[in-house]
Formats: sequence, C-alpha cells, structure tokens
Amino acid sequence: MSDLSPLPAMPGQRLARGTGRLLRSLDHAVLTEFTPVRGLRVDLISLGPKGELWVVECKSCRADFQADRKWQGYLDWCDRYFWAVDCDFPTDLLPDDTGLIHADAFGAEITRMAPEHRLSGPRRTKVQRDFARAAALRLQVMCDPGALIAGAS
Amino acid sequence: MSDLSPLPAMPGQRLARGTGRLLRSLDHAVLTEFTPVRGLRVDLISLGPKGELWVVECKSCRADFQADRKWQGYLDWCDRYFWAVDCDFPTDLLPDDTGLIHADAFGAEITRMAPEHRLSGPRRTKVQRDFARAAALRLQVMCDPGALIAGAS
Repeated sequence: MSDLSPLPAMPGQRLARGTGRLLRSLDHAVLTEFTPVRGLRVDLISLGPKGELWVVECKSCRADFQADRKWQGYLDWCDRYFWAVDCDFPTDLLPDDTGLIHADAFGAEITRMAPEHRLSGPRRTKVQRDFARAAALRLQVMCDPGALIAGAS
Repeated sequence: MSDLSPLPAMPGQRLARGTGRLLRSLDHAVLTEFTPVRGLRVDLISLGPKGELWVVECKSCRADFQADRKWQGYLDWCDRYFWAVDCDFPTDLLPDDTGLIHADAFGAEITRMAPEHRLSGPRRTKVQRDFARAAALRLQVMCDPGALIAGAS
C-alpha cells in the first residue's frame, strides 16, 4: 500500500503521525501541539465521539523521557494519559498507571490502556472549546494563508 | 498587499473566504461546510473566544436565496445568524431580524449585527464538540493524507 505523506523528519513526529492514525481508527479526532493552559503543551490530544479527551506524549528515547519535567501536569487536562514510544524504548521507565502505545510513522497499537480519571464538566467544556478553536484556526490558514493577515493568531 | 491564496472559483466560496477573514479578525475560529445535525449544512460556523457560535450563510444572488428552504432550521444551532452577500445583492429580500455581512473574496464587514438567541448549555456543548472533531479530522488529513486510510471519515 502506498503512503501519501512524506516521512516526518524528527523521531517524535514519526511517533505522533502513527499514533494519530491509530487514534483516528478509534474514531478520535486528533490535534498535535496543543496548549491546554499557559506553559503546558501536549504532543497529541484527541477527542472521541462521546467527548473523551486523551493526551499522548511521544518519547523517542530514554533521555527524551528523563528531560520531561512537566508530564504530570498533563494529567489534569485529559481523561486518559498515554505515552507513545517505539519498539526499542525501555518501557520499564514508564509509570504503571499510565497508558502505553507502541508506534512508528505508519501506525500504532495500544499496549496498555490508560486508567480513566474523568475531567470535571467545566474543564471538559473549556478544553473542547480551546481544541475546537485551535483546530479551526490552523485549518483556515492552511486553506487560506491570506487569513493570517486578518487575525492575530 | 499581495494575497497568498488563489481566488476561489465559485461566488459563494469567495464570499465565504472574505467572511472567514472578517470573523478571524473578530477572534472567531471559522469552519466551512459544517453539519450541525443530519440534513442541515451551514456555509460557515464560527466559535468566539467566549464560546459564542455564529452561523453565516453566503448568498451570491437572489435565486440562490430564494432556493434556500432550510435556513430557518439553522437558527436553532447558533447564537447569532447572518447572511453574507456582495454589494449588488438585493438586501430588501432578507429578514430584518437576521444579521447582514457585506463581503467579497478579500474581506467583509458587518452591516447589521444579528440579534442574539443564546443556545442552551447542552446544545452549545454538542455543537462545540462536533465543531472540534470536524475541524481536527480535516486538519489531520491535510497534514497526513495517509491518515484517511486509518479512519472512516
């Protein structure tokens, strides 16, 4: 089967692409590089058909994981939290009570489902609104680059 | 000032592009061709920073307006409803209690603000969620066409 997209340059982007495809196959809509609150930016966030919000951080190697001082802050912004790693990643490093996805650039699978910690209603509403706005603002600029002149974002 | 995007082929698309730029300048995130419920598809929906939902129908000529049998159904899916037309459109046709935007392919302005009829909380939540999913699904396919293979949408 041919693939229509060029391979992303960075290891983390390759994991994100494959994970994004997995999430889509689960009927989740995916957004990369999302900022739920100032100072935190997640690699992937997805929104399921019932409003479920999942966050996935992509880690390309041990050092990439060990340099991450912020991941526990992400738990407050999703119902389920996952790591996405490649098949060579030392998964013993990762906390047992988080989800695990094995990915490459072409696809991914869930190795361990993340436990669910459901967001409060107001927070879910806020994240969904911010998700919607971020996705639509990016989409508009891709379809009409001239729109950038019109807005601040 | 140069413009980065090719001019859309259809008159309605040109109105939609200019109106999208206006909405962005008002800090609204815009999505085209959105289906809030089966059987209804709006030309533009926008989501403001406080969660406001506006719908805009683009009408290129009298016949285009007169052929529209569905627009009153759109009122139930937004806080404010507008028409977008060009400067030659016979605006006397349009109901006084709807908003009016004058647009071309490059920009637009609000000629008459639409009255506000605020959505209920549950409906607003549903529309925001569907908006978020639609925008992200389209964005993912633009960034990674191979993702289409992974999902149903």
